[in-house]
Amino acid sequence: MTERSPLAVPFPQIPPISGVTPRIARAGYKDWGRCDLTYIELAEGTAVAGVFTRNVCCSSEVELGREQVTGGQARALVVNAGNSNAFTGYRGREAVEAIMSQVAGHLGCSPDEVFVSSTGVIGVPLPKDKARAGIEAALTAPPCSWEEAAATIGTTDTFPKGAVARAIIGGTSVTIAGIIKGSGMIAPDMATMLGYLFTDAAIEPGFLQACLAAANARTFSCITVDSDTSTSDTVLAFATGQAGNAPLGSFEDAGADAFAAAVHDVCRQLAHLVVRDGEGAQKFIAVHVTGAVSDDSARRIGLAIANSPLVKTAIAGEDANWGRVVMAVGKAGEPADRDRLSIGFGATWAAREGQPLPDYDEAPVAAHLKQREISIEIDLGLGEGHATVWTCDLTHGYISINADYRS
Amino acid sequence: MTERSPLAVPFPQIPPISGVTPRIARAGYKDWGRCDLTYIELAEGTAVAGVFTRNVCCSSEVELGREQVTGGQARALVVNAGNSNAFTGYRGREAVEAIMSQVAGHLGCSPDEVFVSSTGVIGVPLPKDKARAGIEAALTAPPCSWEEAAATIGTTDTFPKGAVARAIIGGTSVTIAGIIKGSGMIAPDMATMLGYLFTDAAIEPGFLQACLAAANARTFSCITVDSDTSTSDTVLAFATGQAGNAPLGSFEDAGADAFAAAVHDVCRQLAHLVVRDGEGAQKFIAVHVTGAVSDDSARRIGLAIANSPLVKTAIAGEDANWGRVVMAVGKAGEPADRDRLSIGFGATWAAREGQPLPDYDEAPVAAHLKQREISIEIDLGLGEGHATVWTCDLTHGYISINADYRS
Repeated sequence: MTERSPLAVPFPQIPPISGVTPRIARAGYKDWGRCDLTYIELAEGTAVAGVFTRNVCCSSEVELGREQVTGGQARALVVNAGNSNAFTGYRGREAVEAIMSQVAGHLGCSPDEVFVSSTGVIGVPLPKDKARAGIEAALTAPPCSWEEAAATIGTTDTFPKGAVARAIIGGTSVTIAGIIKGSGMIAPDMATMLGYLFTDAAIEPGFLQACLAAANARTFSCITVDSDTSTSDTVLAFATGQAGNAPLGSFEDAGADAFAAAVHDVCRQLAHLVVRDGEGAQKFIAVHVTGAVSDDSARRIGLAIANSPLVKTAIAGEDANWGRVVMAVGKAGEPADRDRLSIGFGATWAAREGQPLPDYDEAPVAAHLKQREISIEIDLGLGEGHATVWTCDLTHGYISINADYRS
Repeated sequence: MTERSPLAVPFPQIPPISGVTPRIARAGYKDWGRCDLTYIELAEGTAVAGVFTRNVCCSSEVELGREQVTGGQARALVVNAGNSNAFTGYRGREAVEAIMSQVAGHLGCSPDEVFVSSTGVIGVPLPKDKARAGIEAALTAPPCSWEEAAATIGTTDTFPKGAVARAIIGGTSVTIAGIIKGSGMIAPDMATMLGYLFTDAAIEPGFLQACLAAANARTFSCITVDSDTSTSDTVLAFATGQAGNAPLGSFEDAGADAFAAAVHDVCRQLAHLVVRDGEGAQKFIAVHVTGAVSDDSARRIGLAIANSPLVKTAIAGEDANWGRVVMAVGKAGEPADRDRLSIGFGATWAAREGQPLPDYDEAPVAAHLKQREISIEIDLGLGEGHATVWTCDLTHGYISINADYRS
């Protein structure tokens, strides 16, 4: 890992999840002398749900994963780091199927219950021999910690990322743990990068999918680092059922709201961690949009601001350049009325209803912009729609990482 | 002007256009000791056409200009540099109307025949006193050259930009001259930044509008520097009719095709000049998309590539990272089939039909990427749709300009 992001936070205390056993090994996909293959064994009866990239040039892993999730059952997860295996045609697909067969043979399960993700260079078929040897080593490795697993799935990440939340379902306490990787090629409208949630709760697959999709819409789909949508993005949720709660099948069941809230909480934490490790990020930015004609419109306007290179460089320069925010609102393609628009930073209005405030005091805004955590407020004055979008600033670090990085 | 772009080209030889008299003056909108007000007088009977930004937070100048163009007649153009007057409410509108009245009083024409554009900081009302004194000075200044006028309309531009073309209409030679400014906040789907075309040809306003709109669709709407759409973008075309040709009213008229082609030629030249002065640009990039389901789909895919920060930084790093091109094609939201997609650089294919070429020789591609002028070829293998989009690379220069520039 390169220099740690200034926005990094410590890895949280995540307890073991009953029915989930992570192991790591060195497949050597790149010449980097670190573990790069993560193998997570799941107890029999584990339910699975997933959301995937909408990029139409997606990887075989994503294609297969979409089909596998419809079965609802999982026994293992394999994550390869250093090679995304995307845009590699039939050879790439064969490499994934070989991994699925190898693990299925070991566990005595169907290959469809073995989920594979890969992340890294695009266009190089995953080397089957390295994958085979890596899996073999992982199957016999001792169990590892959540932090070790989180570090092993990373590529350009500068710190390992995890989150945890708890919920009570019918008197039974359940835990939801998550790990994620991602730093660049992070964009809206999909499940971003590789993220995994694990819970000991008993949850029926359809309801697990509903909870994950709902959380995804307001977390992973509301972050952006650079507007570029990866070909491999995947978020999977696994529920082993070992906690012993009465299985949840719908929002009508007792404890369902608490479980859904905890899934949302873990997803939001993980999404924020990805932004905190945005390539070159020096500042964490929350864009709060209110007064839009709908929540979806608010989200699109928030993303137009969060994806604007001119807004992101202004924040990097600690410049309260609200004119660039006006520009971004106006280009979003959503209903907006220039003469009702208000813009603020750190809860101080700079402009209200289409005009700069005559008594605008820039001092509190300037002080706010020197912080690591920045907020931008936009009120459209049109309706009740609202959304929050998270991003980071655009700095020389992003250019250095991506003009020099040969993926 | 700051350091000249490495992609700059010399200002062309542009002859005087009969009926068009440019003058410049110092209004002092910024404390920069240079001329910043351009006044161009137009002969009676001059026809006008225009295309404007689609940004809904547009300036008063754009709002007024849209209405004025419907009248079809122009007597003067005023361009203020250093203050865009956007997002300034009724005070901004009053400042524009004051300029229109002042010039109309001098010329004895309707205020509606005086076109005003402004470019620079957003959110500060244009100071009326400076504008009035600047206009007064300009009205009595000696005529200036096209190059001086082009330099005066610029803001962060690093070189003055002009273009010229000729056409024969019914045996009469006519000239079309253009000047433009623009460097950042340059994005697709609209008439970009401030551009002006002047011709001595006699052209009816409706046909002038048709020619300009058609040229705009394949030139200004096919360039992008940073995906950010300005609040002030305007392209106006003025035809003084002094060349003495039989007036053109439709594409059926003799010479209409030649005139439309010349307008297209000038627009393309001007659009390329803006990209050549893209903030921080070190390379000029042409993205050629073929095999799409339609021309419009090809353009959208081209823009997704041209707006991708990961593609732009790869080119900056002279890295033939075609995986990032795959990613950008896939996120464009347009029909694409991963297994039919081919990608090349400088006319050398790197990947064909969904897979890296087994005998791919990177040497010619590496040599191509060291040049200033880069081409990227994408064939989708689906249909006959094609488009070319132009952009520049994304470098440390862009970050420096925009994190430090306090507009």
